[in-house]
Amino acid sequence: IINFSSCFHQGILERLDAGEIVIGDGGFVFALEKRGYVKAGPWTPEATVEHPEAVRQLHREFLRAGSNVLQTFTFYASEDKLENRGNYVAEKITGDKVNEAACDIAKEVAKEGDALVAGGVSQTPSYLSCKDKAEVKAVFRKQLEVFTRKNVDFLIAEYFEHVEEAVWAVEVLKESGKPVAATMCIGPEGDMHGVPPGQCAVQLVKAGASIVGVNCHFDAETCLKTVKLMKEGLEAAKLKAYLMSQPLAFHTPDCGKQGFIDLPEFPFGLEPRIATRWDVQKYAREAYDLGIRYIGGCCGFEPYHIRAIAEELAPERGFLPEASEKHGSWGNCLSMHTKPWVRARARKEYWENLKPASGRPCCPSLSKPDGWGVTKGARELMQQKEATTEQQLKELFQKQKF
Amino acid sequence: IINFSSCFHQGILERLDAGEIVIGDGGFVFALEKRGYVKAGPWTPEATVEHPEAVRQLHREFLRAGSNVLQTFTFYASEDKLENRGNYVAEKITGDKVNEAACDIAKEVAKEGDALVAGGVSQTPSYLSCKDKAEVKAVFRKQLEVFTRKNVDFLIAEYFEHVEEAVWAVEVLKESGKPVAATMCIGPEGDMHGVPPGQCAVQLVKAGASIVGVNCHFDAETCLKTVKLMKEGLEAAKLKAYLMSQPLAFHTPDCGKQGFIDLPEFPFGLEPRIATRWDVQKYAREAYDLGIRYIGGCCGFEPYHIRAIAEELAPERGFLPEASEKHGSWGNCLSMHTKPWVRARARKEYWENLKPASGRPCCPSLSKPDGWGVTKGARELMQQKEATTEQQLKELFQKQKF
Amino acid sequence: IINFSSCFHQGILERLDAGEIVIGDGGFVFALEKRGYVKAGPWTPEATVEHPEAVRQLHREFLRAGSNVLQTFTFYASEDKLENRGNYVAEKITGDKVNEAACDIAKEVAKEGDALVAGGVSQTPSYLSCKDKAEVKAVFRKQLEVFTRKNVDFLIAEYFEHVEEAVWAVEVLKESGKPVAATMCIGPEGDMHGVPPGQCAVQLVKAGASIVGVNCHFDAETCLKTVKLMKEGLEAAKLKAYLMSQPLAFHTPDCGKQGFIDLPEFPFGLEPRIATRWDVQKYAREAYDLGIRYIGGCCGFEPYHIRAIAEELAPERGFLPEASEKHGSWGNCLSMHTKPWVRARARKEYWENLKPASGRPCCPSLSKPDGWGVTKGARELMQQKEATTEQQLKELFQKQKF
Amino acid sequence: IINFSSCFHQGILERLDAGEIVIGDGGFVFALEKRGYVKAGPWTPEATVEHPEAVRQLHREFLRAGSNVLQTFTFYASEDKLENRGNYVAEKITGDKVNEAACDIAKEVAKEGDALVAGGVSQTPSYLSCKDKAEVKAVFRKQLEVFTRKNVDFLIAEYFEHVEEAVWAVEVLKESGKPVAATMCIGPEGDMHGVPPGQCAVQLVKAGASIVGVNCHFDAETCLKTVKLMKEGLEAAKLKAYLMSQPLAFHTPDCGKQGFIDLPEFPFGLEPRIATRWDVQKYAREAYDLGIRYIGGCCGFEPYHIRAIAEELAPERGFLPEASEKHGSWGNCLSMHTKPWVRARARKEYWENLKPASGRPCCPSLSKPDGWGVTKGARELMQQKEATTEQQLKELFQKQKF
Repeated sequence: IINFSSCFHQGILERLDAGEIVIGDGGFVFALEKRGYVKAGPWTPEATVEHPEAVRQLHREFLRAGSNVLQTFTFYASEDKLENRGNYVAEKITGDKVNEAACDIAKEVAKEGDALVAGGVSQTPSYLSCKDKAEVKAVFRKQLEVFTRKNVDFLIAEYFEHVEEAVWAVEVLKESGKPVAATMCIGPEGDMHGVPPGQCAVQLVKAGASIVGVNCHFDAETCLKTVKLMKEGLEAAKLKAYLMSQPLAFHTPDCGKQGFIDLPEFPFGLEPRIATRWDVQKYAREAYDLGIRYIGGCCGFEPYHIRAIAEELAPERGFLPEASEKHGSWGNCLSMHTKPWVRARARKEYWENLKPASGRPCCPSLSKPDGWGVTKGARELMQQKEATTEQQLKELFQKQKF
Repeated sequence: IINFSSCFHQGILERLDAGEIVIGDGGFVFALEKRGYVKAGPWTPEATVEHPEAVRQLHREFLRAGSNVLQTFTFYASEDKLENRGNYVAEKITGDKVNEAACDIAKEVAKEGDALVAGGVSQTPSYLSCKDKAEVKAVFRKQLEVFTRKNVDFLIAEYFEHVEEAVWAVEVLKESGKPVAATMCIGPEGDMHGVPPGQCAVQLVKAGASIVGVNCHFDAETCLKTVKLMKEGLEAAKLKAYLMSQPLAFHTPDCGKQGFIDLPEFPFGLEPRIATRWDVQKYAREAYDLGIRYIGGCCGFEPYHIRAIAEELAPERGFLPEASEKHGSWGNCLSMHTKPWVRARARKEYWENLKPASGRPCCPSLSKPDGWGVTKGARELMQQKEATTEQQLKELFQKQKF
Repeated sequence: IINFSSCFHQGILERLDAGEIVIGDGGFVFALEKRGYVKAGPWTPEATVEHPEAVRQLHREFLRAGSNVLQTFTFYASEDKLENRGNYVAEKITGDKVNEAACDIAKEVAKEGDALVAGGVSQTPSYLSCKDKAEVKAVFRKQLEVFTRKNVDFLIAEYFEHVEEAVWAVEVLKESGKPVAATMCIGPEGDMHGVPPGQCAVQLVKAGASIVGVNCHFDAETCLKTVKLMKEGLEAAKLKAYLMSQPLAFHTPDCGKQGFIDLPEFPFGLEPRIATRWDVQKYAREAYDLGIRYIGGCCGFEPYHIRAIAEELAPERGFLPEASEKHGSWGNCLSMHTKPWVRARARKEYWENLKPASGRPCCPSLSKPDGWGVTKGARELMQQKEATTEQQLKELFQKQKF
Repeated sequence: IINFSSCFHQGILERLDAGEIVIGDGGFVFALEKRGYVKAGPWTPEATVEHPEAVRQLHREFLRAGSNVLQTFTFYASEDKLENRGNYVAEKITGDKVNEAACDIAKEVAKEGDALVAGGVSQTPSYLSCKDKAEVKAVFRKQLEVFTRKNVDFLIAEYFEHVEEAVWAVEVLKESGKPVAATMCIGPEGDMHGVPPGQCAVQLVKAGASIVGVNCHFDAETCLKTVKLMKEGLEAAKLKAYLMSQPLAFHTPDCGKQGFIDLPEFPFGLEPRIATRWDVQKYAREAYDLGIRYIGGCCGFEPYHIRAIAEELAPERGFLPEASEKHGSWGNCLSMHTKPWVRARARKEYWENLKPASGRPCCPSLSKPDGWGVTKGARELMQQKEATTEQQLKELFQKQKF
């Protein structure tokens, strides 16, 4: 069964208004880091200029897997970020070039199917270094100019830890007249200034976002809790918006407030936490049941994870994605295996109930996040004083009578 | 530092004779399954014809990561296998076409660097269904004709559970006059008829293999044990050959004799077992110390795992792979992070000693393999009688007074 | 150093008023079940009559370990409970006999040191089967008559899930004129009718309790959270009382509202959860820091766990318990071991930081409590309809359109 | 059902010859350490003189639980050991007094049932400090004099790491004319000089032992492997003897050659490894199936573990132990519980299949033993040079060019 549902190219809001489930794409920086095109640490997308074939291929895989939206690979592609971290990027690769190439590649692949292209902006060093509203907005506006010129279908403000900055981003993006989605990388405790998820959602919708939700930093279970709080906040304020979730594909029940970055495994030891396709099917179902209609993924989501969303929701949507040609639902491709005990795995109950082992008997199942229990004051002190361990921090404290 | 070591195109044996470390590539069927181009169960490589761009991109990523050999994507591409499992593959896609396309793609990418192309054959349904030597050899010879016509650099007979079939494969491949490597998917207990690893190695070298070792089915630790036994067998027999290892990138300390296929997590719940890049660096060092000079990976090895081999052995080889442009050795790309506790992760000791958590507190760390403790007779009975669970097997046993 | 602190026999309130730390005793029903004198399920204390030597020896061990209070072994010794469950207890063993023997044994051993004897009552079947206040109070009064006749030092109402019943118990016990302590087996979510811990504490103090807190059902960490809430409730109400904690010696982070009884391991598979002596030292320190001055244990607390409380607080109290003659603080008794790596364990940092392995790689670290997520209505239905599994419950639900 | 099988007092060999299963007792030093009467480190049994009531009570509990043999509490009670470690034991408590009191207590309790009393000797400091055969034998002979005078029923030489010393012990004990059992604390790799288990067994039987096997140092699974090797050794040598096993009640799959002493959790963090009663039933069944007829336990075995052996083998023996009055087979005492999900635990399948959680998600399931991979030479160096960590050892090695 191949998707024939959309004969004309319809916009994101038309699709949502019509009751469609929109499937997002997965995590570019993590996937391309493993493929050798993105550097962990800076996490910047100069690959759009340096290795367009690699970016193109990943877009294509998500499209085949069922993505209805291809996000331009413009994460951390604001001019201030590229400058800041860009000493390993050739000088001639300006922010504009990265953003333009990202649009071109996404649009080219989107035409191979029926996907929408969304231009994306994310949090900026300018905001974190306390620049004022005008300066921060100017940074977003520079990226928006490219998106407008390239005529993307809609815009996403994503990966914001502070709702204030997210609101500024939405305000800028709305200047284009295109629909705007906004997702924050926060958990149920709210943004970094303590604004609860419900209030964040209200502020974003009032600023002009038609779709709100969360992305990154936490696993699916935690993200859904946060979106639920957003939903309740909107209902209480009698506001209406579509809900969106793009969580990590890593299990992170042991996260603190700032998410997986504080886990000791971030970013090079996260493998044992990777979600299976069945974990993702569970997530898709729960997201759907919660009323979320824009369902995608963030860091760790590979094409097969996106396919899992599309397969779980195939009954509701009426079709399977192209890549399901190479996948049997719930492992039924194992039904012809020569070993009977492998054949016995060709069924839903098996995979739904499997508790997968790690093969690592000397490793714990949960970690203690770094910086855990460290107060805001203490964290600031650590940064000023260049303490790099909690032990050094304790010593600092003793000296300074905190 | 970019590889400038090989000014001319030298063959595999010249390289090994010169004391070079040869780095293999990673696992195509698993990587392309996750990207949406290979079906788990059959695991056949029709993607070379259907989606050459996807195969090409994966080859390119391994090349960038440091692979000196690109294996043609011809796993399970024997005519008998494709027929047997091929009902979902278009009729016009013959075995010859798959093998030819695989050679063309590999050769095209190999030229982007200085890699060798190796044509590969693997175990056949013909052998498992008890066809005779002539028939089995004919199957291999059909693939060899393509490899000869396409003039690959050398040949690999890999993924054999029975040394008898592997010997037949080597004998056929040697007809070409090209160097032959042979790896078996066995553990320290030996092949499926109980031939110990040392004897397997001796038989393979006597049949004409210049390089012997193991691939697939077990994790690095187990594979190295097996190669060590092969090495000792060769020494005892006063035979000389180069050693090769291409293990899984999954932790499998709980495997039985037939490897990861019997683990309950195979093939769709293996995520928590995925090796980190640091696990792979440890493997690369231990393989090198054991005297192995052809070091690569099999299922689960992604480009960043191959890069880890190249980075670990950079001191011995004198250069880093291209993809290290996007990677700081031992996490040093984190040294500029704004959070001090993340900066503290930018060092070797941190990642070497990290015991990564799974984030899955309700899952065990080890599994009991299916079919565990089931004797050969019992397994055969299960297959005849269509018992699919151990419970049913037990009932069968009781009825039949085994 | 032997305890010479109390030259005269002072009462519980005199001791607490003087700023002393009072150490309670451990868990009789669990310890005597393992020794062969108590039956799991009924958990009744007929051993006081049947095998007084076994009860006497356990009291003596707790005394040696540092207990300042010996509780009469009268748990579940109300007449209605013994009748209800008593078909395996000889008819001639009346409730009065059990309670009398318990007092005699505790008083006899208490004289070997300087311990107080506390008579204890706990929740009754009468309350759970909806008998009225007068009837329930009559049950407590029957036990109180024995305690009065035997002239115990003070009284404890413990192991109550409903604050209403606990208040009735305190009211009855106060009729004696003796000091009364009251502990509930609740977690931070409050009693079974949803009364929060703070309000429970307020009601108990208003009813006449001089000491309030929690015992049983949850691990130390959870219990301290609950006592903290009680403390805050009392402060808000401007009431004053001493605080008391007697938690489980089992790790139960995965408990639901009703505590360890709903864990699948209860009561015969709890071994991997048993606290080490170092876990208990941590608990004792945290309890002390929270302001708790009556610190003991419940199920799972063996004599060496009580000794750990006494050793941790030895600096504050100025003396060690008798049983410390056979124990080196923080493992220092290992400092003469012949193996250097065992000698290296003779220090505080070692045991404080040890993450003890379970030796069970096929077991998870957390469980899903039975009855989890089952609402009150559903639980009642399960009980009426005799469903014994959640699966049967689901089927019932489907049939009855819940 | 109460044991009425043995109307007269029959000796150990008469019982075994008659096909009876003999149940041993549990671990005194660990149980009494937790009760406050034995000091970890020295592990000596002066409690027989200091606190006979505590020793008596533990004997009585094992008797109730089903033990047919009460071993005198004379572990490490050789004169040289008591002197060596005895500075915390009052001077007047001589070795003779300890051994005499141990015999008196065991005999007194044995009469309460129908148990045999076995006098026990174990490895000596004299042997480890290289004293000669005559000197070592003199040490054993001193203990034997007490056992002879007190007329114990038979003798056990247990806890020997070197078969040479064990043989000397057996030779001395045989001088008494009483039956002798001999167990070594070794694993499948054999004794500390590398003598394999099969040869150890042969030497012990040739020296005069009628019963041979293993005790302590390893878990049940490992001990049974070792006894199996002993059995095969005896069969190969055409020798006949009864087999005996008294393993730890701790799970130790991660042990090295010297057993649980090298585990980082020894001796104060072993709690998560404690066997459940169901683990012990499994052990009892497997021991029986292997042909072992003297089945008991060592460190960690509490009375309820011994009862589990007696309950598992009740069908073969025809009776239950006294303490089963307070225990329902396979949890059936839960069948009247008010909660249906607890009632559902009243069955064999439930407990047999339970994978008990540790409640410790930040702890691994396996440990790396200390001193692991350290060769004999290295260990000696560590001892001479006072290195206490592997790190220090490595540094020593580098300095000394090992």
